[in-house]
Amino acid sequence: GLRNSKRRNRRSAASLVVVDELAGQYEESFEDVKRQIVDYFTYKAVRTVLNQLYEMDPTQYRWFYDYVAANEHGYGKHFIRNLVKERQGLGERVMVTRLHLYGKWIKRCDHSEMYERISEQNLELMRERLMETVIWPPSTDSN
Amino acid sequence: GLRNSKRRNRRSAASLVVVDELAGQYEESFEDVKRQIVDYFTYKAVRTVLNQLYEMDPTQYRWFYDYVAANEHGYGKHFIRNLVKERQGLGERVMVTRLHLYGKWIKRCDHSEMYERISEQNLELMRERLMETVIWPPSTDSN
Repeated sequence: GLRNSKRRNRRSAASLVVVDELAGQYEESFEDVKRQIVDYFTYKAVRTVLNQLYEMDPTQYRWFYDYVAANEHGYGKHFIRNLVKERQGLGERVMVTRLHLYGKWIKRCDHSEMYERISEQNLELMRERLMETVIWPPSTDSN
Repeated sequence: GLRNSKRRNRRSAASLVVVDELAGQYEESFEDVKRQIVDYFTYKAVRTVLNQLYEMDPTQYRWFYDYVAANEHGYGKHFIRNLVKERQGLGERVMVTRLHLYGKWIKRCDHSEMYERISEQNLELMRERLMETVIWPPSTDSN
């Protein structure tokens, strides 16, 4: 989850017409997906660093925890830019960690598993819906 | 961006200790990344369907636009579950679209490009910071 996503989402909704005008090009580039993934790995790196600090450096942990809690602008480039200004060491650590985590993800990402997962969930939701709407035949006992 | 992410983020922060106790296992599974990606493709499918309706079916567009604008619970499974109850056809269309979009993404996703992108952004942010903190030697003109 990204902190600024609610706002970003509103902006997206407001600019739907603009996106539509850009036509296929926008959808094809998947630039939004890429940005979303980079931001998520930044967020994941923040959590990982927090977990490490929790064990190793309570003072730094408390500071970073409060910093993250006060962050309302998501985990885009500006997040690290600002962090590096406040605590350069922490900023560098988050950067190294997100790259490391992405490297691990490359080995773990299984596109066909993900495709299956979406397909399965689609079917499951349709089954659920079917069960809700089906009119069961009256039980023969009650006749 | 996912609508419920702010709330989810708070929950994550609150349960950091729990996550820490689960140790490596949690981080290794990358289950959070997978869920994040599925939710994002649901969101992307919603936008795609909205774009299509905007051209083809203004009445349906208006209804769906308002429905999405009122949605405060993100784009998890429950989003489609609820949509399917309200307008089954739209729910099915979003499901088909997200699977289709993911299929396209499989062809577009370039892990090494993404890795490079993160690495480049890290370097760029470090360069920026360096430029801010460097003490420039006095110009020889002013001596």
